[in-house]
Amino acid sequence: MIERFIVIMAGGKGERFWPQSRLRRPKQLLPVVGNSPLLNQTVERLSGFVPLENVFVLTNSLQRDAVLEVCPQLPEENVVAEPVGRDTAAAVALAAFLVKQRNADGIFAILPADHVIYDKASFHSVLNSAFMAAERNKVLVTIGIVPTEPATGYGYIQQGEEIEKIEGHSICRVERFVEKPDLETAKRYVDSSEYLWNGGMFIWRVQVIEKALESYVPELYTDFLKIEQQVKKGVPILTTLAELFPGLQKISIDYAVMEKADNVVTVPANFDWDDVGEWSAIARHSEADPDGNVLKGSVMVEKGSNNLVVSSEDHLVALIGVEDLIVVKTKDATLVCHRSDGQNIKRLVERLGKEEKYKDFL
Amino acid sequence: MIERFIVIMAGGKGERFWPQSRLRRPKQLLPVVGNSPLLNQTVERLSGFVPLENVFVLTNSLQRDAVLEVCPQLPEENVVAEPVGRDTAAAVALAAFLVKQRNADGIFAILPADHVIYDKASFHSVLNSAFMAAERNKVLVTIGIVPTEPATGYGYIQQGEEIEKIEGHSICRVERFVEKPDLETAKRYVDSSEYLWNGGMFIWRVQVIEKALESYVPELYTDFLKIEQQVKKGVPILTTLAELFPGLQKISIDYAVMEKADNVVTVPANFDWDDVGEWSAIARHSEADPDGNVLKGSVMVEKGSNNLVVSSEDHLVALIGVEDLIVVKTKDATLVCHRSDGQNIKRLVERLGKEEKYKDFL
Repeated sequence: MIERFIVIMAGGKGERFWPQSRLRRPKQLLPVVGNSPLLNQTVERLSGFVPLENVFVLTNSLQRDAVLEVCPQLPEENVVAEPVGRDTAAAVALAAFLVKQRNADGIFAILPADHVIYDKASFHSVLNSAFMAAERNKVLVTIGIVPTEPATGYGYIQQGEEIEKIEGHSICRVERFVEKPDLETAKRYVDSSEYLWNGGMFIWRVQVIEKALESYVPELYTDFLKIEQQVKKGVPILTTLAELFPGLQKISIDYAVMEKADNVVTVPANFDWDDVGEWSAIARHSEADPDGNVLKGSVMVEKGSNNLVVSSEDHLVALIGVEDLIVVKTKDATLVCHRSDGQNIKRLVERLGKEEKYKDFL
Repeated sequence: MIERFIVIMAGGKGERFWPQSRLRRPKQLLPVVGNSPLLNQTVERLSGFVPLENVFVLTNSLQRDAVLEVCPQLPEENVVAEPVGRDTAAAVALAAFLVKQRNADGIFAILPADHVIYDKASFHSVLNSAFMAAERNKVLVTIGIVPTEPATGYGYIQQGEEIEKIEGHSICRVERFVEKPDLETAKRYVDSSEYLWNGGMFIWRVQVIEKALESYVPELYTDFLKIEQQVKKGVPILTTLAELFPGLQKISIDYAVMEKADNVVTVPANFDWDDVGEWSAIARHSEADPDGNVLKGSVMVEKGSNNLVVSSEDHLVALIGVEDLIVVKTKDATLVCHRSDGQNIKRLVERLGKEEKYKDFL
């Protein structure tokens, strides 16, 4: 019997959401949008699609405790921590192994932990067609989000001809994956109606993705086989991962497989989708005052527009005569950032990591 | 014997230094410039000029405890709290009464608590000449600061002919007092060399200022006489002030007396002087980084210039892509203000006072 599984990738650092997002409690474990942590929303979004015991979360050792706390509904053994991050190809190999241990004929979806999708019914419908496509054919399925604007922050998928329709959803060939474009290119993409956003959601059979790993990243594949063999011999998986996972090739699944394989298909999806990539995403999901300010917690604006301010009830942030700022106040750190510099928060966090006296703020 | 006294006016709210400056601990009780609270610096600046027992501090009931804590060197009975603020004319009447109780022939200086003057020797020298002028003649003496720039934040004194020279300092008639000018007028003032900054420092005999109050604000004068009579009858001064001080006319000494009297003289002073009127004054007294940022406490600037940031060692404030901001982080409140809006902090504080839920932040 072919069984369906979900593996949620939750090992990110969420650096662009500093100072709320921290090494031990990154973005996906915080309610940056909505009332519960993004990971919890991602797990809840799957209810009715697969049973909880078929949902895995891949995280890292720093965050595992917080993941269990945020997702008490998950079986503890389904939350697996990588000892160190080795990018997404190694994570996919580990995911395939976890699923295979449950069901050698398993088919699984890789889903990011930190995306916001409100239309659960539409999401299930697309995901179901994607699973069916992966069941019927030896293909690597990716969900492509129909773009609503010429975003420059996402990679794109150029879709090819429609192969079939499953339960109302097109299954299309993929012509190519393209990197984050500049604005002009993005506009062309959106105008052409040929391009989809790459949302990092993949669906495939265990055997099919293993075959692809073997073909395109053989070194990673054979190194991972050693992990499998050791676990089969009875060595605990955590011990084995601690020993062998750090030696795996560090490469993304996009570079390693998706951009090379010829059996990739995509399911264009129309559901709402937001990867909540940086602070300004919060403003998109919140109501603004008449001056365009989005204010959380105790905030007073004497004069100012288009600011995003995140404070708490017991701490007053006052703004006077400022525009287009992101101000985030946490217990031990405060960010004051121009809205157009949201991408540079990552650079700041890198600097923090290099200075001993600032390590506590990571 | 004519004895010299100093009365320091320390009842201000320091609203422009919110959120550090609070009702119970305003600017003058904080080390906003230098290593000790401004009031303490003001008291220390007098050492060698008059004995400490001749130094009074006028404050208000909310701040008296903090004043005593900040100035442990002062005799406790020299720190007198007004039950409510009634502007500076009433405060001067009270000051005259306090001095008179010690010495009916006393002569005293009124000094603001929150100004910064580093050149103590020069300050003593000017103050000594001012006291001598007030001793010799029945005049109201004011110290006029020789302006170093066309400041629009101060009132000006137009100086007239020199009457005499005392110990190297000119004693000049005052033609008139003028309100804060616009920039163009200020430039004319400075170019003319006829104008001095009004620093709010006055020196006079008890009898001379009492005579002036009687002439120009007779209602205030006679109302204050009732306070004196009640104290002479043996009613404690605090009880008397609580009962009668709130009924006094609310008017500044400048409006009430200085702008009307014809016996006002000024001593032009060349010492350094800063009234530390708002946050940007801090930047003037601090060293900036190569990008013009003045940073106190734990602060990191990823990209940005001409910012003033005040934090603490245990709280990191990070700036990215911002210019000309004042960022002040305290335990329970944070200000983010454009440098050109420093004067609007007062308006913000007024709004806080009107909203019940924000009263704790005053």
